[in-house]
Amino acid sequence: MEMLNVYRHLRKKLEGKIVLIVFDGLGGLPRTPGGPTELESARKPNLDALATESMCGLLDTVGPGLTPGSGPAHLGLFGYDPLEFDIGRGLLGALGIGFPIQPGDLAIRVNFCTVDPRTAVVTDRRAGRISTEKNEELVALLNQKLRIPGCQVFVRTEKEHRACVVFRADDLYDGITETDPQSVGKEPPRPAVATDGRSGKAAGIAAEFGRQAAEILRDQHPANNLLLRGYARYEKLPLLTETYDMRCAAIATYPMYRGVASLVGMEVLDAGGETIADEFACLERHFADYDFFFLHIKKTDSYGEDGNWDGKVHVIEEADPFIPRARALGPAVLAVTGDHSTPCVLKTHSWHPVPVMVWARWGRPDGARVFGERACAGGSLGRMPAIHLVPILVAHAQGLEKYGA
Amino acid sequence: MEMLNVYRHLRKKLEGKIVLIVFDGLGGLPRTPGGPTELESARKPNLDALATESMCGLLDTVGPGLTPGSGPAHLGLFGYDPLEFDIGRGLLGALGIGFPIQPGDLAIRVNFCTVDPRTAVVTDRRAGRISTEKNEELVALLNQKLRIPGCQVFVRTEKEHRACVVFRADDLYDGITETDPQSVGKEPPRPAVATDGRSGKAAGIAAEFGRQAAEILRDQHPANNLLLRGYARYEKLPLLTETYDMRCAAIATYPMYRGVASLVGMEVLDAGGETIADEFACLERHFADYDFFFLHIKKTDSYGEDGNWDGKVHVIEEADPFIPRARALGPAVLAVTGDHSTPCVLKTHSWHPVPVMVWARWGRPDGARVFGERACAGGSLGRMPAIHLVPILVAHAQGLEKYGA
Repeated sequence: MEMLNVYRHLRKKLEGKIVLIVFDGLGGLPRTPGGPTELESARKPNLDALATESMCGLLDTVGPGLTPGSGPAHLGLFGYDPLEFDIGRGLLGALGIGFPIQPGDLAIRVNFCTVDPRTAVVTDRRAGRISTEKNEELVALLNQKLRIPGCQVFVRTEKEHRACVVFRADDLYDGITETDPQSVGKEPPRPAVATDGRSGKAAGIAAEFGRQAAEILRDQHPANNLLLRGYARYEKLPLLTETYDMRCAAIATYPMYRGVASLVGMEVLDAGGETIADEFACLERHFADYDFFFLHIKKTDSYGEDGNWDGKVHVIEEADPFIPRARALGPAVLAVTGDHSTPCVLKTHSWHPVPVMVWARWGRPDGARVFGERACAGGSLGRMPAIHLVPILVAHAQGLEKYGA
Repeated sequence: MEMLNVYRHLRKKLEGKIVLIVFDGLGGLPRTPGGPTELESARKPNLDALATESMCGLLDTVGPGLTPGSGPAHLGLFGYDPLEFDIGRGLLGALGIGFPIQPGDLAIRVNFCTVDPRTAVVTDRRAGRISTEKNEELVALLNQKLRIPGCQVFVRTEKEHRACVVFRADDLYDGITETDPQSVGKEPPRPAVATDGRSGKAAGIAAEFGRQAAEILRDQHPANNLLLRGYARYEKLPLLTETYDMRCAAIATYPMYRGVASLVGMEVLDAGGETIADEFACLERHFADYDFFFLHIKKTDSYGEDGNWDGKVHVIEEADPFIPRARALGPAVLAVTGDHSTPCVLKTHSWHPVPVMVWARWGRPDGARVFGERACAGGSLGRMPAIHLVPILVAHAQGLEKYGA
């Protein structure tokens, strides 16, 4: 926060545009001892060429040894210490579906679930992954019937069995126990109880919401109840657009990333499709309109989580030909990195730092010959907290005044 | 501050001497894509030989992405976080001319200026860059005639149109608006007004000073008024000589650097001349008398700001033959770095980190073959905040006890 104020006092109009390309879960691990990582084994002549002209390094997006969730990882990439700005998952979900969240709102993740009609024990935490259409039907029912005095309630479909609810009233805080038992066949949904003094009002509303929802959904099948988790009060963040004198845009196809981008003041653009080609075409269409672009490529992470080595490699190779198109737009700064590592051999997010390269008109290339974990380890950015990335990008676009005389 | 206390508790008598050579604005950028920087293109066999026996790295003197002013940059190099120890320019100016500043003094930069005699509008913010002799004449006049009840006033010549004034009284704080309008032909000097509750007294004195000065200078030409900026109260810093058990000396020809060195407890030596040769001769003369030497070479920055590539390269080449003379003195530690980058292609200070090398009797060389930005990027010091440098130098001179048991 303190450093954000330093940057804010030094901000000036950028002398060129910044493009930040984030491959989700980019970092990886060798699958054979001494072998290449996913990134190192990809054929990506354009990314490698960019590396030879870039400053390279390794980023810790949350902290050394910490495995980042996607929300905190992106906050870190956007320059906000995720350990200071703790954004709950409910909030990211609500923002991701474009809900017009307001400061003070309490957002909660909802999973439709199946309970045993006699014992109320949770038998399926995802209600057989119901269709999104069915989800929408149930959400309509809930919005129609649910009434909580003194509190506005907004239930919204996310996807399949996932939804979210936003409570709007004064004094709603998020110290509340989750109702998801995290097990099946053992216990009913747990009670929503306040864990601190100021969250009593919100806990009461959550409990009442759960009671009414169970009643309303009782005769539905298989989604005859719901579970609450990821309570998150929305405290407005200092905006990227205010810390720096720049208009920011996000190009991302997944709700979560669109959500966190809008949270820091980016405008979320409509790519008109979900492919990498659609995303780069969107960058080209809007290049004149903004100073800072965040372009998010999701599938590297998805394949990493599946343990699909070839799939992950292919996503990198698929994106590679678009690098020259991004360069052709003439940005002052073009950076490529990930939000965290998702090594195929682990099939999950990991704590390994992510490679980063920053090409800039006024950059000082450091001699890396390829874009990969090992090459980046010897780069001039060093191994650094990701929160330093945006200031460095802005500096290279000449968007910060001199500090002191 | 906290870390300074840690070092202070561990300090012990050094087992050898430390020499820190600072080339102002040393870091640079290639002038052709893929080409060498100023430092990389210089013929400097002795600096390169030193690099092969040194630990190398890159320093951020204020912070990643931040372009340092000279004052904050040097504070960083001396181990003081410039974001915590915020030293105003007025103070650096006063110290630079050797004014015996005392804690609580308020120091202010003065520019003689020209105003339209009828409208009082500022027509030249530098009074046609009057000679230093004329400046001295006006300063004598001001010191003779100015009287402010309850406050001692010391006006001192700096150079050409630049002077400084120090107010000495109780409770003088520096939250005061600058009177320099930063434009010509538009407005008179602005009023000096307090911007916080505790600076009212000092603002009143500054306003009265401005009023009397305008009166005294009225019939002078072209310097018929003055402008005030860079208000800075002197809060005593923890001294380098107290943090570590070492006597410190500064060899620097420019006022600003002599000033910041004295601020942290260094004795400013008289080099008896302004050349690099004079500075190294001074080092040799005084080598027995101190434990820590800061030797400052200014012209790399001056040529960088002029965009004079050959000039900047030449300063490095001119200094190179003195490296063996410094080594011949037998220091325990010999470090070479810059305070910030001043790339010729930018003609100004920049945010790029500065190369550093630390040779030490008990050092662990890391295999760099030359002293340059790229070689240092792969060095064992990594990319680090400059505040870590002095503790590392002192450690290599065996001046810090073990921490804990």
